[in-house]
Amino acid sequence: MSEKLSTQPYKGTRDFYPAEMRMRNWFFGVIRRELENSAFEEYNGPMLESLDLYAAKSGEEIANKQTYNFLDRGDRRLAIRPEMTPTVARMVAGKMGELTFPLKWFSIPNMYRYEATQRGRLREFWQLNVDIFGCDTYEADLEIVSSAIRLMRAFGADEKMFTVRINNRRFFNDVIAAITGKDTEGSKAVSKVIDHKNKVPREVYEKELTSLGLSAEQIAKIDALYHMNVTEATDLCPDSRGAGELRQLFDALEKMGLSKYCIFDFGIIRGLDYYTGSVFEVFDNAPENNRAMFGGGRYDNLVDLFVKNAKISGVGYGMGDVTLENFLVTHKLLPQTYGNGVKVLVTRFDDVPYEKYMELTDTLRNAGIVSSIYLGQKKFGKQLEYAVKGEYSHAIIMGGDECARGVVRLKNLSTREESELSVTDAIELLK
Amino acid sequence: MSEKLSTQPYKGTRDFYPAEMRMRNWFFGVIRRELENSAFEEYNGPMLESLDLYAAKSGEEIANKQTYNFLDRGDRRLAIRPEMTPTVARMVAGKMGELTFPLKWFSIPNMYRYEATQRGRLREFWQLNVDIFGCDTYEADLEIVSSAIRLMRAFGADEKMFTVRINNRRFFNDVIAAITGKDTEGSKAVSKVIDHKNKVPREVYEKELTSLGLSAEQIAKIDALYHMNVTEATDLCPDSRGAGELRQLFDALEKMGLSKYCIFDFGIIRGLDYYTGSVFEVFDNAPENNRAMFGGGRYDNLVDLFVKNAKISGVGYGMGDVTLENFLVTHKLLPQTYGNGVKVLVTRFDDVPYEKYMELTDTLRNAGIVSSIYLGQKKFGKQLEYAVKGEYSHAIIMGGDECARGVVRLKNLSTREESELSVTDAIELLK
Repeated sequence: MSEKLSTQPYKGTRDFYPAEMRMRNWFFGVIRRELENSAFEEYNGPMLESLDLYAAKSGEEIANKQTYNFLDRGDRRLAIRPEMTPTVARMVAGKMGELTFPLKWFSIPNMYRYEATQRGRLREFWQLNVDIFGCDTYEADLEIVSSAIRLMRAFGADEKMFTVRINNRRFFNDVIAAITGKDTEGSKAVSKVIDHKNKVPREVYEKELTSLGLSAEQIAKIDALYHMNVTEATDLCPDSRGAGELRQLFDALEKMGLSKYCIFDFGIIRGLDYYTGSVFEVFDNAPENNRAMFGGGRYDNLVDLFVKNAKISGVGYGMGDVTLENFLVTHKLLPQTYGNGVKVLVTRFDDVPYEKYMELTDTLRNAGIVSSIYLGQKKFGKQLEYAVKGEYSHAIIMGGDECARGVVRLKNLSTREESELSVTDAIELLK
Repeated sequence: MSEKLSTQPYKGTRDFYPAEMRMRNWFFGVIRRELENSAFEEYNGPMLESLDLYAAKSGEEIANKQTYNFLDRGDRRLAIRPEMTPTVARMVAGKMGELTFPLKWFSIPNMYRYEATQRGRLREFWQLNVDIFGCDTYEADLEIVSSAIRLMRAFGADEKMFTVRINNRRFFNDVIAAITGKDTEGSKAVSKVIDHKNKVPREVYEKELTSLGLSAEQIAKIDALYHMNVTEATDLCPDSRGAGELRQLFDALEKMGLSKYCIFDFGIIRGLDYYTGSVFEVFDNAPENNRAMFGGGRYDNLVDLFVKNAKISGVGYGMGDVTLENFLVTHKLLPQTYGNGVKVLVTRFDDVPYEKYMELTDTLRNAGIVSSIYLGQKKFGKQLEYAVKGEYSHAIIMGGDECARGVVRLKNLSTREESELSVTDAIELLK
């Protein structure tokens, strides 16, 4: 073999060397602690699923385009999961009789999407999924929104750094119908235009609405919604179920002291075909990155691809690792060190039997102190160099003299201070 | 859609519902704590790699057969990783100049292999990989073997439950040469026969050795090796480097008090083409399952597929999750509960404003007590039923009367005991 292989990872994927991995373990640890503290339970499923699961939801073509998929030797078309909802729907459907609803579940699966890579968008990523299944009322929406806020706060973020923008799809439909006087079909056509408002020039937007029969006054009324608070907006169709849900949610958020994080935003739609009630997106407030980081909402019929006549609704959010990591970097919320920072290298000399060092290392480890013996037979200076480069906090030095007197020298590698003491005292100090 | 989709996961993969996931998080937690305590550092890499990485190591055909692989839209042939070594080799090669050797690294990646499923062998599994890179001497072998023992002990296993069977590939080659008097090529042919000794009838084995020119006496000498201890075996070729390594390793294991876990076993070979020094396998001692659970050893030229003229050796082991989980079940080493078991459901009544319950739940959560408000509007009896089925340990009950008096009732759901106390006292009690 003279042709050498590339050391680059596959495009859009990442290598996690120990420094990056420490950060990730801390990152996932914060998430797990926060969600478990609120009695959410973790689950996971396989990386590979039948492509049918995704095709049934979003159509064969999109499923094919967005996923890595292939035939196995049994001619079954498999996909690497591009999202978690079909898997969790399958799992809930599979044990519907045994599970106790409402379920509060979360997962942090890795997944793949076939897409052009750019900042914040990779081909391999991890996505936190938090959901409540089987509770139809606003209490679950509130729990989900406040969970997203608690999570951001657990990372040290405050109300100056992020905002939760909230809308309601039922309210959206009802207020459009109220303003336009159209039936369900007619409202839907108007909704489609509004959904891509920001993707077309203003003239095109107005022309499209006009061609659907809307007057300038009606268009102005819709425009006004984008600047209204929740009371003003819901007053436009006070009897709408969606308006009631919105008011209940904002009222409860206020009573929980969470309204400083939240704002009503008529612009939050999140695609037309999936969500059915509350919808929300969490925005980064940093001017250089003022955009939605993640979001979620309420949807119906979680299990209907699997079980006839069963209706389980869900409300939840999904959050990509890359997006939140970028946020933490932007707002300087990453810790300087992970863990307590103590990591001890036991150095060695030729005039002391190796087993003395092994014994010492064992004693440290059994006391819960992260430690290693120096592996190999290099000179003392090289051993210390290894300790410093390897981010050890301390070195323990025990030559023949110290060994005979039953003491060690403990060297702090950042301050360079060194002191002679017993192993017991060294352990106390390191703890 | 009248045709409903299956709720079964893909063959050879598993769904992890919360009960299984709690077990896995505990399981990986034990592994992480133990290895980090010994100053091993965690890394990870992508699930997808270029198929070349595996083909270069084990040949195109085997790589094709054992991996899930496919072309991406850029006509690049990708594989879902069936093992971790090629990935870590790529990563080490990619930063060779920056890394500080010896490296002590571990990873717990999920991976896929295309194979017939059976007990202990699935298509999707997790595999712990523990390695030391860049230390050529026996100290690293010792650290790796003792790490495997520490890990088993961290799970509560003792010397009655498992045995580490150790051999050395250099010694193996040298002792075969010493017994047969053959050169390297000749010894290799004999080794191949010995390697599949247990896979063919005894007559076939003897016939093959005879046809390679071995006498009955030489065959008997090889047979005898399987019953020798390390001193007897290494005395057959005392000057072999491999014999020296074996003696050093066993000597150190004895001095560390680990020899009760370890035995010399000439039958441990682990394939002929990969390992170059120490090799070992950890056996389950249970009579119903007396077989190798996992193993490892020393290998050379980790990075030579990537970097010209670079030589980095490694020593390590790989352990599948399924195998070790089976071991823990067999030896009843799984804990009864995970975590401290406290999980509180705040129940609700209509005569108290909902925000009072939210406040209470917030207070519990901020005190670090796993808790949830009951989501939904069912009767009290149904709420308690939910708490019991959902494995909550306690329920907090606060009706209008309690609320007015500033107290709650705390119900222990296993003992059914109930007491009235202040929220502060309830938190103290729950902690």
